[in-house]
Amino acid sequence: MARGGFVSIEGGEGAGKSTQVRRLAEALRAHGLDVVVTREPGGSEGGEAIRELLMQGEVQRWSSHTEALLFAAARADHVEKVIQPALGIGTWVVSDRFVDSSRAYQGVAGGIDDAAVLALHGFGSRGLLPDRTLVLEVPPEIGAERAAARDGAAADRFAARERAVQDDVAAAFRRFAAHDPDRVRLIDASGDVDAVSAAVREAIADLLP
Amino acid sequence: MARGGFVSIEGGEGAGKSTQVRRLAEALRAHGLDVVVTREPGGSEGGEAIRELLMQGEVQRWSSHTEALLFAAARADHVEKVIQPALGIGTWVVSDRFVDSSRAYQGVAGGIDDAAVLALHGFGSRGLLPDRTLVLEVPPEIGAERAAARDGAAADRFAARERAVQDDVAAAFRRFAAHDPDRVRLIDASGDVDAVSAAVREAIADLLP
Repeated sequence: MARGGFVSIEGGEGAGKSTQVRRLAEALRAHGLDVVVTREPGGSEGGEAIRELLMQGEVQRWSSHTEALLFAAARADHVEKVIQPALGIGTWVVSDRFVDSSRAYQGVAGGIDDAAVLALHGFGSRGLLPDRTLVLEVPPEIGAERAAARDGAAADRFAARERAVQDDVAAAFRRFAAHDPDRVRLIDASGDVDAVSAAVREAIADLLP
Repeated sequence: MARGGFVSIEGGEGAGKSTQVRRLAEALRAHGLDVVVTREPGGSEGGEAIRELLMQGEVQRWSSHTEALLFAAARADHVEKVIQPALGIGTWVVSDRFVDSSRAYQGVAGGIDDAAVLALHGFGSRGLLPDRTLVLEVPPEIGAERAAARDGAAADRFAARERAVQDDVAAAFRRFAAHDPDRVRLIDASGDVDAVSAAVREAIADLLP
């Protein structure tokens, strides 16, 4: 039995990741594939428990280094308990965020070397990378509007990150795409949902069995 | 102002660590020093929240790798929020367990390379080591009896670790002492509490101002 495909969807706040994750999963199922939809931080029972620690409390509750360790722990559990078992039985996995978010947020925006973030990922998750990573790009002001409309006053600490962080994150994702163009693809997500969905499907079409 | 001294107390289950931590703190205070008593995993608000994750659930809830990342995260928070601030104002710190427990439990008993455990510690806590680490040694059957008498049916997952793990841990601590005899000292903890306390005080006497 062939191993399943692994796709992660990345992007800043309000880029439309969760909508596109859902739509991509529907498209893959329509293609006859079994699909697990998951997210980070979280995605497994243990990963979701660690997510609670990361999402609760003050914005500055954890240092960048502590946060990077917690994300790596959550990802290790997620990979071990959910992602690898699914891939191993031929199921596809579509994840709302994966290691590139750690590289962008704790790494570039948090001031931690990319090599250190990847070393933690190597330790915890044997360095597993998606087969394809799609970065949904929207102009930052549109992303901020969408995130505010969605989250309202309940915006969590990640949505509360200031504009400078969002700019760092957007630049980081573009750099990852430039350095690894086969895996990481930029998707213009400023258009309507159907157009973005079509671009997402096109960007993974070569992976389909 | 001189930096405070940092002492960790290590040992297997039922070695009498918490009693000796308390007694050493009393002795240091009687010597005119300010002392913070703390513990791992935990010791800070964030560290204690991570401790809850580590202590709850099934014994096999976390893989050794995920567990090592969670311990490193808890320790990073503990060092940043409690230990370094105390040492910086001249306060002494006595900790019930520190990084040598990770080296022994996740490392030797959990099958993770010592270099990897130390790399996580370097990343999260800048590799901070105690000025002195005292390993309380008791024959394993005495430790098991004491732990059972203390914890009863509520023995947590660490107390539930099987005998083979305790043997691995004891051997690991002896190896650390052999490799770093200035920092890590073995204390015979099979005698009565007063005799062990005296040996503990003697083993840190050269550090006193």
